[in-house]
Amino acid sequence: MVVELISVGTELLMGNIVNTNAAYLSRKCADLGLSLYTQVTVGDNPDRLKQAVLQALEHSDVIILTGGLGPTKDDLTKEIIAEAFGRKLCRNKQWEKKIRDYFELRRITPIAENNWKQADMIEGAQVLDNKNGTAPGEIVSGEGKTAILLPGPPNEMIPMFEESVYPYLKKRTNRVLVSSMIKVCGVGESSAEERILDLIEKQTNPTIAPYAKTGEVHFRVTAGAATAEEGDALLAPVVKELCRRFGDSVYTTEESVTLERFLVEYLTKKQLTLATAESITGGAIASRIISVPGASAVFKQGYITYTNEAKESLLGVERETLEMYSAVSRETAKEMAYGAWKSAGTDAALSITGNAGPKPSEGKPVGLVYIGCCIHGKTWTEEYTFLGNREKIRENAAASALIYLRQCLLK
Amino acid sequence: MVVELISVGTELLMGNIVNTNAAYLSRKCADLGLSLYTQVTVGDNPDRLKQAVLQALEHSDVIILTGGLGPTKDDLTKEIIAEAFGRKLCRNKQWEKKIRDYFELRRITPIAENNWKQADMIEGAQVLDNKNGTAPGEIVSGEGKTAILLPGPPNEMIPMFEESVYPYLKKRTNRVLVSSMIKVCGVGESSAEERILDLIEKQTNPTIAPYAKTGEVHFRVTAGAATAEEGDALLAPVVKELCRRFGDSVYTTEESVTLERFLVEYLTKKQLTLATAESITGGAIASRIISVPGASAVFKQGYITYTNEAKESLLGVERETLEMYSAVSRETAKEMAYGAWKSAGTDAALSITGNAGPKPSEGKPVGLVYIGCCIHGKTWTEEYTFLGNREKIRENAAASALIYLRQCLLK
Repeated sequence: MVVELISVGTELLMGNIVNTNAAYLSRKCADLGLSLYTQVTVGDNPDRLKQAVLQALEHSDVIILTGGLGPTKDDLTKEIIAEAFGRKLCRNKQWEKKIRDYFELRRITPIAENNWKQADMIEGAQVLDNKNGTAPGEIVSGEGKTAILLPGPPNEMIPMFEESVYPYLKKRTNRVLVSSMIKVCGVGESSAEERILDLIEKQTNPTIAPYAKTGEVHFRVTAGAATAEEGDALLAPVVKELCRRFGDSVYTTEESVTLERFLVEYLTKKQLTLATAESITGGAIASRIISVPGASAVFKQGYITYTNEAKESLLGVERETLEMYSAVSRETAKEMAYGAWKSAGTDAALSITGNAGPKPSEGKPVGLVYIGCCIHGKTWTEEYTFLGNREKIRENAAASALIYLRQCLLK
Repeated sequence: MVVELISVGTELLMGNIVNTNAAYLSRKCADLGLSLYTQVTVGDNPDRLKQAVLQALEHSDVIILTGGLGPTKDDLTKEIIAEAFGRKLCRNKQWEKKIRDYFELRRITPIAENNWKQADMIEGAQVLDNKNGTAPGEIVSGEGKTAILLPGPPNEMIPMFEESVYPYLKKRTNRVLVSSMIKVCGVGESSAEERILDLIEKQTNPTIAPYAKTGEVHFRVTAGAATAEEGDALLAPVVKELCRRFGDSVYTTEESVTLERFLVEYLTKKQLTLATAESITGGAIASRIISVPGASAVFKQGYITYTNEAKESLLGVERETLEMYSAVSRETAKEMAYGAWKSAGTDAALSITGNAGPKPSEGKPVGLVYIGCCIHGKTWTEEYTFLGNREKIRENAAASALIYLRQCLLK
């Protein structure tokens, strides 16, 4: 079953709002194993909407439309779909009452005339209740094609989809999709892909799709089958093979596990505590760790030592080290990690120092970063060079620090 | 000039990521006074991409494509556009060198073979430099039509657009658009909009468009005219009126000034230094401040005191205070600010403590946050309650802390 999404609304086309509906509905269709043809966004323009609907009906079985169901003159989705399916619009008495109740409850009287338009339904359509607004949804079917009309505001659309549309679509598909997410860290995107090119090339079912994140590559492996058990059986050998090829670089096969969550869970399991000492990232590493619920079990404290004085006074970095090697050096990173470990009294400490630009500093080029790690008094350091603007360098630096901490912990 | 956006990427069609590029580019086109026909999203599927391109060329003058420029086999945007414009792909020696340098700098060798594909350019195209990645952009023109190819990742796409594409499109429109961005902090979205509803309702030229950010509302005022001088003359009275209505809540009228940049510049001008003491935000406040180039002139050091022990040992918060009022209290926020100010030896210190959830803690509900500020020994505190999940609460907390610091500084 092929599906097409049409988002209707000038506010989308003007870029005033981000189309989160399209992402939500696409994900749900993927979960249902429905093949999505395209996503199209049109403004509140009847000709262009009509053209988009006619094109979609050509190559898709189901069109899901969001937006354009409201009370204003601009809202024309219902009218266009009625025309495309050769149906009339009829006033629905029940919905008329619902609109009256809605406004009277809110003491908004007199009720503006254009609101009654929302009680007009396409002949023969299944009406979908809207618990969070005045525009109902509708499902219209005819000649093997189906149009599903949903309101634009996500807080109306999502509950309506979950309640009525998801079960409707699930009944119409006879296929189950199962998927696994293999998350790899510390391997570049193209090199990661090259390592499994043979698998990608011969993929049919399951399929393997790579996604690049900062410092990470995620592979979604998806299998379609008649039952979940059959799907899992198809999935298992491919997941196993990916894990074999990437070895220790794989930190999870679960979608919900992020690198920071992996670290918090790992440290919790091993009963280890952590401190951070950040210069270039200025708190971004600690912030990622603390974003994980339950981080308080492992994360104790962090130092943001942006100046040399702070590196000396809070972490005990030697002035000689800063003078001889500069703040952006392997030596400083090492003393920062050791100093944080000692002063925080934790099992492990992670440190970072570098130059995020915009200019070289003390002879150190923009993008040069040193990361240090101290576990029970033993220290390791590593040198990195990142390209890009200040934001990109800092983002890469924070990601690399988390990856480096994982490496040191696994040693 | 009619423009169409085509977003390419299976990850968009699967709903794995939200298409923020489409909103960004639509906004920019609106700013330039360009009429957007539709936004289309297709997967990494050559036939559908080709179909979308051919359709777009029928009714639009300019197509902007994002995504599908990477090194993998799936990345086919360049190939499809070359075909649609009847051009060949030629290996670009300069870009070949750039790719080599990029990988050698990162010590990623041998360079995976598929990377070289990124050095292939469409015959006669204008190459757009990519400072944040290995895939260049391109502008191809022929027979009155233009295709603009941009990389998919927003941190590569946006700088490339700002630097090369915006000026290119601006030159092609014969109307000048001037705009001003009035940034308001500490006023809710609907209340802000209500205050200027009369202005929004009667707007024609200039137009006023509100954008809600966490803790902030931005109003873009845009005027179209034959010359920049004429446009500025139209803009000035509206900007003045907005500034009058929002008074001290306006922190800038310049697009490039963020709240953190405002603070860094303000502190620099007043020759004041700053320290932070964060619990709930775990470094996110310091990270926002340090993201500003030149932050080192004002930001000295930060404390991430996630545990009660860290609050005591690093900031000198009294154990009695923690026991009597709990860590999430006005009293703790006050002592944290004072302690950070004293121990860092800065002019000002900003502190924050709260409960980000997922569960109430020590009787304090999820979302309760206290912010403290100490300037030259004098302290202020404020209580906040935020709704939403952990991430949303932490984001709101960090934004509110920066707004609160501004308020205290202006006192």
